[in-house]
Parts: sequence; C-alpha cells; structure tokens
Amino acid sequence: MIAAEIITIGDELLNGDLADTNTARLGALLRARGLGFGAGQTVRDDPARIAAALALAASRAALVLVTGGLGPTEDDVTMQAAAAFAGVKLREDEASLARIRERFASRGYPMTPNNRRQALIPEGASALENRAGTAPGVRMEVDGTTFFFFPGVPLEVDALAADHLLPWLSQRVPAGSRASHTFKTFGKTESQVATLLEPLPRAPDLHVAYRAHFPTIQVTLHVDEPDAGVRSARLEALSTEVRRLLGPIVFSEAQGGSLAEAVVRALAGAHATLALAESCTGGLATAMITEVPGASEVLVETAVTYSNDAKTRRLGVSEALLAEHGAVSEACARAMAEGIRAGSGAQLGVAITGIAGPGGGSADKPVGTVHIALASEDGTRHRALRLPFDRARNRVVSAFAALDMVRLHLNA
Amino acid sequence: MIAAEIITIGDELLNGDLADTNTARLGALLRARGLGFGAGQTVRDDPARIAAALALAASRAALVLVTGGLGPTEDDVTMQAAAAFAGVKLREDEASLARIRERFASRGYPMTPNNRRQALIPEGASALENRAGTAPGVRMEVDGTTFFFFPGVPLEVDALAADHLLPWLSQRVPAGSRASHTFKTFGKTESQVATLLEPLPRAPDLHVAYRAHFPTIQVTLHVDEPDAGVRSARLEALSTEVRRLLGPIVFSEAQGGSLAEAVVRALAGAHATLALAESCTGGLATAMITEVPGASEVLVETAVTYSNDAKTRRLGVSEALLAEHGAVSEACARAMAEGIRAGSGAQLGVAITGIAGPGGGSADKPVGTVHIALASEDGTRHRALRLPFDRARNRVVSAFAALDMVRLHLNA
Repeated sequence: MIAAEIITIGDELLNGDLADTNTARLGALLRARGLGFGAGQTVRDDPARIAAALALAASRAALVLVTGGLGPTEDDVTMQAAAAFAGVKLREDEASLARIRERFASRGYPMTPNNRRQALIPEGASALENRAGTAPGVRMEVDGTTFFFFPGVPLEVDALAADHLLPWLSQRVPAGSRASHTFKTFGKTESQVATLLEPLPRAPDLHVAYRAHFPTIQVTLHVDEPDAGVRSARLEALSTEVRRLLGPIVFSEAQGGSLAEAVVRALAGAHATLALAESCTGGLATAMITEVPGASEVLVETAVTYSNDAKTRRLGVSEALLAEHGAVSEACARAMAEGIRAGSGAQLGVAITGIAGPGGGSADKPVGTVHIALASEDGTRHRALRLPFDRARNRVVSAFAALDMVRLHLNA
Repeated sequence: MIAAEIITIGDELLNGDLADTNTARLGALLRARGLGFGAGQTVRDDPARIAAALALAASRAALVLVTGGLGPTEDDVTMQAAAAFAGVKLREDEASLARIRERFASRGYPMTPNNRRQALIPEGASALENRAGTAPGVRMEVDGTTFFFFPGVPLEVDALAADHLLPWLSQRVPAGSRASHTFKTFGKTESQVATLLEPLPRAPDLHVAYRAHFPTIQVTLHVDEPDAGVRSARLEALSTEVRRLLGPIVFSEAQGGSLAEAVVRALAGAHATLALAESCTGGLATAMITEVPGASEVLVETAVTYSNDAKTRRLGVSEALLAEHGAVSEACARAMAEGIRAGSGAQLGVAITGIAGPGGGSADKPVGTVHIALASEDGTRHRALRLPFDRARNRVVSAFAALDMVRLHLNA
C-alpha cells in the first residue's frame, strides 16, 4: 500500500479567505482505490516553508499531492520551492509554453509576460497537460517519492487528477485491500448508535468510524483483508450484523443517499403520493423532498401555512380547534395532516407545526415544542418532539422527523 | 505578533468524507485581530501521529488551535494524544462531568458510559465550557505554547472560540492595524464584480478580496493602517466608493447577513406581506425566507404546486392557459403570482416555475428554463432565466432570483 500525503499551498487558506476542498476531493479519489492520505499540511506562499513541507512529506510518504501556487503572479512560488527542494534549476517547458500561447490566442486574450512564468518547471520533472486551465501540472520524482503538483482551482485539480494521477495509480496500485460500507442513521445520538453497536467484534481487521452530519449519524465499517473473496464475505457478514443491531434507524446505505431520497424511493415503490402542510419548518421538508430528481412523481403539493388564517383557509383547520388547542398542538397537527390529505387527494398527508425559536415560546409550550402528524387511509398518527437546539437546527430536525415518519410508515 | 498554527484531526478529513472548514473559520477570526496561521496540519485519529503534530506545531508557534477528536467514541483520541505529548495523565474534570450529566438529564436522554470519556482532560489543563455541545474544550500550556482544543463540529468551534479564545486573545494581542468591510452581491459573476471595481485605487494599504459563495460573490475591503482614526475614515471612504460602483447588486453588508434576511427586513420596513407559489424550487425560496427569525410577520403562506392540477386548484391557473402555454411559461408564472396574491391576501405574490433538471427539458424549453413573476398592486412583472447549472444549483439560483426580485421591488 502506497503511503500518501497532501500539501495545500496558499496564504488564502490560512487567512480565512478560502476553505480548502482539494484535500477532500483528492482524498475521495484515493479512497476509491483503497488508499488514503496519512497526513496533510497547509503552507503559506513562502518558498522556504514549502520546501520544508515537501521534505517532511517525502520523509513519510511515497506519493505526495500538492495543490496551489502555480498561478502567474509573484506570490505563486511552488515551482521555485520544488526546484530548491530537489536541488535543481527551473527550465522553461516548450510544449507547455506553446499550449499557453495557443490558449491565449484561441480566446483572443493578450498574453502577459507573467503567464510565461507558468511554463517554468523543475529540471528533470515532467509537465502534465492541463485541459481546464493555463498552468500545466507537474510530476517530479525525488529519492523514491513521486510528487504531483496541481493548481489550486478545484476544476483543474479534477481534470489533472483524472488525466494524469489516475493512470499513474492504475499502473502501481494493486486493487485495494480495504473494503468499506456506510450506514446512515437518523433518530439517535452518536453515542447511542455506538452503544447499539457494542456487540460488534473487536478485531484488528475491522475499523468502525462514526461521523455526525447533523442531524444524522453515519457509521462506516472498514475491513482490511488482502484476499478479495474473504474481504467481501467478511464485510457482508458484518454489515448484516450492523443492520440487525441498528434496525429501522438506518435510512440509507447508498453513497450520497439522503433521507429525502429514501422517502421518495419508498413512496415510488409503494405507488403512494404525498402532500405536506408545513408551519414551523416553513417549506424545508418540501425543499428536501424536491431536491430529489423525480420528486414530482410522488409529491402532489405542499401548503406552507404560517398564519392561523391560512391553516383555516387552506387546510380546513377549524377556528374552534385553533381557539381551544392553539396552532402548536397535537389536535392542530392532526387536523392539518388530514386537511392537506383531503384537499390534495394524496394518499399520505403530513403536517408539522411547532415553535422553532428564538421567539414564540411559553412556559407551557417552550421553544422546541413540535407536533408532527401523518394521515393515511389507516388513520392519523402523531408524534411530539421537544427539541433543544437553535432555530435552524430545530427546523432541520423537525423536517427530518416528519420525513422519517413517512419512511417508517411505508417500510412497516 | 503571536505565531499561530492549526491542527485538524480526523480520518474523515483525509479519506475524502469531509472537507475541513474550521481552518477557514478560525483563520478569519484570527485575521480580524491582525493574526493568521503560519501553517496547518491535518492528522489521522492516531495518538502517535497527533502527538507528533502537536510537537511540530509547538516548535514553531506560541498558539496552536486544534479541532476534532473530542467525541465520545473509541476513535476520538485527541485528549489521550495531548496528555502523552505533555507527559501527563488524563484526569476526570468534575465540572465538565457535571455539565455532561446535566445536559443529558435536561434533554431526557440516557447518558451512556462513553459520554463520560468526554470529561477526561490532561492534568494541568483547563476545561472550557461548551454551550453548543457535550465535549468541553480544553486549554493547555506546554513549554510556552498555548493549545486550544475544540471539537470538530463547526457550531461548537464557533461557540468555544467566541467564549474562550477571543477573550484570551484580547488580553494578549494589541488591537489590529487592519480594518475590513464585506459586501455581499447577487446577480454578477466574480470577474464581472471585479471589473465593476476596477476604478478603485491601487494602494499598498488596500487589499480587495473576492470570495464566491454560490450563488453570491462577497467582496471584502481590507485597510492596513496603524492609526485607528485614519483607518476607519479610509475604510468608510472606500466603502462609499464600492457602494457607488456596485449599486443594487449589494444585498447585505452585515456579518452573516443573507439575502432572505434582507428581504424580510425590507418587507417589514415597508409593512408589506408576501405569499409564494413555487414549482421547480419546491419550497426552497420559502425555506430560505422562514430561516429568518420573524419571517412569520411578513410571510402569509406558500403553495408548492408541482402538478398542473395543484396549480389550477390552489392558484386558479386556468386549464386553458396551461394547455396553451404549458406550466413553464411566462403566462403561467404571471397567473401563479396573481393567484397566490389574490388567494392569500398578501400585498406581494411571487411565483417560480421552471425546469431544474436533470429530466424534463425539451428543445424548446431546455433544462434551466425558469420563469419568475412578482404580482403587486402596481401590476405583475416577469423575468425569464436560462440557467446552465445542475438541478441543485438551478433551484438555488431560481430561489435567489425570486427573492432578489422582491428586494429590488421594495428598494425601488
């Protein structure tokens, strides 16, 4: 297994001007081949600091990916630092210079002298054609470590990685010895999920990773085993055990799968349609659903009814009910769910009403009080939440809880 | 000037599971005090690697911020590594344990044994109360370097930095010599905004930074000048010039100010109310509006009408109109805006109808075709968009464009 590291270069990354995404994008690319970064460094646009970072990474890794500092301006000094680290001079790469000239000519832009700097690469290194930008990438070998230098712009990183890094990896990396599987859960905290999974074996070939992505918790099983057949059997057996231990809180095992996607899929699978009545979530649950392509097949309509008047006019919630119980109540949630179901003709009607905060709370109904109801041909079910978060997170959890009620109803 | 570094901890940061944003958020916080990180390291959840990273940072910096690895699970090993680095043992911090117990009790969650681990901190270090989460932060001094340890969750980083890091900095760092001001714009690309600002002076005391935060572009002016009076006068004069050059595309100059917030403020200021009819955005524009506390004062209701049937039933769009022009048309957008305005009694009715993709496009109406309309007592205005993005970004731009139409109408 190749030990790999990453170095991201640029004052803007350390001054708070820009959040680095290249570490994550290149990390995902390596992981797809069973690799991962052992460490990362972020360095200022300073030749001495960059050279020191290259030396540190080379002392630990056989593959070092470097992004940033290949632009045309004075503060782009990565190539200068790379040459100093390797103990060589910079040379002008003719093919790169020709491509830079051609790029400017084809766009009708004047080429400025500093663009010519972008053709300078360390002696002995190879220029890598960049179809997405001006600066070439560079591959350099120093004492058994291979360095790939890419510009900092994510689109150019993607293009250079696809065109030059992946082919290089394919020749050198045997199919990975790690297999992984991810479960996405909603409804329990990270430590509750960990407690549920305590019966899993402690074994050197198994690593269980938790990641909170509010309000969900993701659990990833990593199995390390050189034999592909043993590896996949082991991962499958462990995954079956995880499914048994976690039960219905798992809403997705798909890469990038969202709760909304699981709900849309479950609705489509059941040939069922949905309509929503949202109060405190203000359209958030619907926006989550409609993010999924194909949502129009299952979502009939939504009414966002903030005011009592709109609840009466659009959903048929009676004024007497509102006067007796208030808009944030089990009775109102049930009436909203039944009202949107009847008015839309959808099979399932879902309602959310509550107090997201920061204002609007009382001793009786504090901020975080939320009522959710699901009306179907089987009758109407209700759930009360008492959430401890701020406005934004109270809304997100309420929307998730409402969608999850639909998922659990359809899977039951 | 204090030399500072950052260390971000977590396998997920190096495996491609998560892009780090803490370096950027803490970097921006330091820069507001005239400081910045000299370097950053990203490290796996491995005690030996973390201890080595702490030692390297301590060799170069007097202040080291560390995020991640304070959670309750087995792979959270930052405290263990910090104790090993400092050559001390872990101790259970009583005050932190009491807060953790209280936090669970107040929410009615059972406290699991692994939550107790979160009260373990190195001997000699101080626990920092975390109002946003379970794990306390930790401050530790080793050989003249001060370490702050924060959890990885951005909300908790923000809370701990505001409560503990900023007061610590205020006692040690003289007021910075830099003043900054940020303008948030919508409707132009980064290079278009830069072109509008070309008349700004080129001066060594002025740094103009651009940051794209899709679909907005933020422009920040930084003025470096030791004299506080001169500095604020210079920043104010330059800000006035920027306002003149950018004109109505600036929707906010407030820290954290969103377009939706500007719209809610403008509606409240004009004592106007709003109702929305959303098709392709599926509730997204309403979710953005209702994210703002106090939105209930200005938003009467929203109808998310995906189907033609719902457009007719809820908004009174005639079947003849739909048959002649289709749902994605100027005529339909106008009828939807007028229908929601009439039905809700709001002063302003806004409608969005379009094809977000990936499916649903045709030669005549390709993916990205969006119609927006605003109905008011002055009549109905319409805007057509032809967007080049994917589904998610087409929806976001459509929602922004609709809200911006309200803002510009009210500010006109």
